[in-house]
Amino acid sequence: MSSCIFCAIVEGTAPGRIVYSDDEVVGFLDIRPVTRGHTLLVPRIHSSGLDDLDPARGAALFRAGQRLATAMKRGPLAADGVNIALNDGRAAFQTVFHTHLHVVPRRAGDKLSFAKGFVVRRDPDPDETAELLRASLEAAG
Amino acid sequence: MSSCIFCAIVEGTAPGRIVYSDDEVVGFLDIRPVTRGHTLLVPRIHSSGLDDLDPARGAALFRAGQRLATAMKRGPLAADGVNIALNDGRAAFQTVFHTHLHVVPRRAGDKLSFAKGFVVRRDPDPDETAELLRASLEAAG
Repeated sequence: MSSCIFCAIVEGTAPGRIVYSDDEVVGFLDIRPVTRGHTLLVPRIHSSGLDDLDPARGAALFRAGQRLATAMKRGPLAADGVNIALNDGRAAFQTVFHTHLHVVPRRAGDKLSFAKGFVVRRDPDPDETAELLRASLEAAG
Repeated sequence: MSSCIFCAIVEGTAPGRIVYSDDEVVGFLDIRPVTRGHTLLVPRIHSSGLDDLDPARGAALFRAGQRLATAMKRGPLAADGVNIALNDGRAAFQTVFHTHLHVVPRRAGDKLSFAKGFVVRRDPDPDETAELLRASLEAAG
């Protein structure tokens, strides 16, 4: 079993609400969501950050982010916008040292709470949220 | 002349402190930097956001971001970390509707000012900053 929590989620030995999967990338709901549907996309192969991330895997990560963003907007989460962010290094707020891309669905009018420093919100039903995202991705093809 | 300010910078008809250039992507200093060296990377071909961004160009954009992040850390800006962010849509704080990736060098200890909602700082010498970044990228190869 891996000592890296994100590797463990990728391997299925730690729980995670998986919403996205391809040959290179796995996506699961952030357990501390900024907004409902906030997803982390991670490369299947471990890297701690940008320095040791194979550029082709980085490109795959961003492609997955773009697909997920489209699904968040077109699907039932009905996002009005999306933030994509990667925090590289402790000085940049990285807390888990397995490279991950945040994909955060946004709604018009949520601005203030987001601007106040990534306030953590409770998702009353994360299982449903994960299901909605999976369905959105399937519909987006 | 383009009505899009970022297209105009790419075309050279509007001023910009260019720090990065490849076949697909141009990078220039943000005129409202969050930190010294804050750069915007844009695809040469116009797209307003993720919806109309060719995925191959999106991948090229992220590759450029990864290269620039490495240069920011290894070069004289001596960043301790880097934030990479893409704001897609007005609800996600997008203000210029030509897709752009923020690449923000971070230093240990700057956390608070950044967390207080992307405070704009004055760079006392942006020309020098641009030159340092260009040199870092050359050194990084």
